[in-house]
Amino acid sequence: MESAIRVNLPESAYEIAIAPGNLERLGPMMAQLKLGKQVLLVSNAAILRRYGESAIASLEAAGFTVATHLFPPGERYKTLASIQKLYDTALEHRLERSSTMVALGGGVVGDMTGFAAATWLRGVNFVQVPTSLLAMIDASIGGKTGVNHPRGKNLIGAFYQPKLVVIDPNVLQTLPTREFRAGMAEVIKYGIIWDADLFSKLEASPRLDQLRYLDPGLLQTIITRSCQAKADVVGQDEKEAGLRAILNYGHTIGHAVESLTGYRLVNHGEAVAIGMVAAGQLAVEMGLWSAECQARQLGSIQKANLPTQIPSFLDLDAIADTLSTDKKVQAGQVRFILPKDIGEVIISDRVSRDTLKQVLAQMQA
Amino acid sequence: MESAIRVNLPESAYEIAIAPGNLERLGPMMAQLKLGKQVLLVSNAAILRRYGESAIASLEAAGFTVATHLFPPGERYKTLASIQKLYDTALEHRLERSSTMVALGGGVVGDMTGFAAATWLRGVNFVQVPTSLLAMIDASIGGKTGVNHPRGKNLIGAFYQPKLVVIDPNVLQTLPTREFRAGMAEVIKYGIIWDADLFSKLEASPRLDQLRYLDPGLLQTIITRSCQAKADVVGQDEKEAGLRAILNYGHTIGHAVESLTGYRLVNHGEAVAIGMVAAGQLAVEMGLWSAECQARQLGSIQKANLPTQIPSFLDLDAIADTLSTDKKVQAGQVRFILPKDIGEVIISDRVSRDTLKQVLAQMQA
Repeated sequence: MESAIRVNLPESAYEIAIAPGNLERLGPMMAQLKLGKQVLLVSNAAILRRYGESAIASLEAAGFTVATHLFPPGERYKTLASIQKLYDTALEHRLERSSTMVALGGGVVGDMTGFAAATWLRGVNFVQVPTSLLAMIDASIGGKTGVNHPRGKNLIGAFYQPKLVVIDPNVLQTLPTREFRAGMAEVIKYGIIWDADLFSKLEASPRLDQLRYLDPGLLQTIITRSCQAKADVVGQDEKEAGLRAILNYGHTIGHAVESLTGYRLVNHGEAVAIGMVAAGQLAVEMGLWSAECQARQLGSIQKANLPTQIPSFLDLDAIADTLSTDKKVQAGQVRFILPKDIGEVIISDRVSRDTLKQVLAQMQA
Repeated sequence: MESAIRVNLPESAYEIAIAPGNLERLGPMMAQLKLGKQVLLVSNAAILRRYGESAIASLEAAGFTVATHLFPPGERYKTLASIQKLYDTALEHRLERSSTMVALGGGVVGDMTGFAAATWLRGVNFVQVPTSLLAMIDASIGGKTGVNHPRGKNLIGAFYQPKLVVIDPNVLQTLPTREFRAGMAEVIKYGIIWDADLFSKLEASPRLDQLRYLDPGLLQTIITRSCQAKADVVGQDEKEAGLRAILNYGHTIGHAVESLTGYRLVNHGEAVAIGMVAAGQLAVEMGLWSAECQARQLGSIQKANLPTQIPSFLDLDAIADTLSTDKKVQAGQVRFILPKDIGEVIISDRVSRDTLKQVLAQMQA
């Protein structure tokens, strides 16, 4: 089982290599790209302990000199202050423009390393080695990098493309179940917005809630098809001028729920699951898609054991207000991505605050 | 007198508009670009006091809503901490992706505003209104943005292109003479690296040391030809892969001198003047260009009343060491831009440390 996806962008094309055992092939794969000899491997302590040795051995065997930098784990360290420490390490090891920062970790490590790579010396090389399902199929593809502002997630960042994305599904075996499910929320999203056939495959699987119940072939398919969906969309709209907005399906309300729960109680995937249910329900109310489709969406989300209700303690007005500070707001109007059919969504700025409040009220636990 | 230069880049083309009185035309010019209504005008207190009213009146008359943010003046505030405060203002005024940050000021304001524009919401619109000669002909063109790291200048940054550059030569009337001369150093640089005819025009002018001795036609020519030279080079090499390096003529040793004098005693243009003399002398020693050409270069630098010697208190070993931490170092080898003829330079990594030390020693006051 081995897949390679090419992400085609006007100024930079790169490959996503997906195969069990890829971590041991990191060095040779990078060697083909004609990068400078110096690598700064960025990770966190827990991930480095598990996978650092393989990655470093592979890089050194391929002739790279490897320094490491560790971020403290978790979203709350996704700050400019953490980036400044990474800059210090980069300076200490005298990284040059031809040097490469390699992100070994989940979405937080990838987003921060990418932003540092984008902004150190006005841009050094960047390679992604995502270790969570969410990072593999979403964060590592498409060039969005950044950190949080105290008052909003990912408000500070840059579009910056990696030179290579290396995915080794074997590393998912140590991923906590809750994080696996969070990734599955984005897989379901790709089924709804882009790939009806992927959605059917998910429906055909008896369970989606734990890695060990998944057929290894299905896992490879899930990762590959999800990456392909994202690469297709990003390839057509790198800078989020239009089409790329559909990737935010479930994210508009999802971000608000995440933000209002302090990015801790509800994780990103769980928030997206809630957001997809809400978007689907809005679409039902507006006559855009059928109750049957909404039931199929709900079924797959429940099969992944993801939440479908808004936590009871959340203030619904606060959710509506938070939406208007989202960075995708245009001319003050919140844009929603709404489903039309399995595999097809539309972008709408015609959701009334009344309909929104009504749907949110229905969904509160 | 009115010139317009088009900077052609693969993904973004933009115009540099040069004419006396342009500050009053800022609003209408920006209105043609179909930007969002919201503008964040970024400047410092002294510049805003002088030119803010014209700029804001013009923007508001064209239908824009204008908020302002002030940086403290000077290179020592060119830090990530200053950028964070700008982010706070951007959040406070709810800037959207279609909003525009307008930099009204010199190179420091432009570099910082550009970096904030590049990284807020992963990129908002950016317009440059440079108010110093140096910023007009150099910093505002080419998309280099950034801030300093405590241990090195411009180590943190991004390539990010403006949507428009608006130059009003009238504002130079209030520019301090020392800053005017600093800009003149870069003008002379364009003559040496790219435009022999511009260099001849400089030689034909009786004085180059103060604006009031310059013919207004010559001023318009100097700005236009300098911008054109930079636009030509940047248009052929946006990301500094090759040709663009020639813009660093005089900057390799110049940066070291600036850095070792704490960015205060010697300003950027003065450091570049010293660096050009040094590069020229290296080229003479290496048999690349003639003593006559070096004398012509020296003559124009002296006519602008710019320094040509290395301050006596600087340690020459420290200069040589500082060169090796420059961000343009490749594979540990310092690359110099050396003149071959008036209007032509080459890139060389064959300067020995001995020759370098010898030239530096000759040049010490």
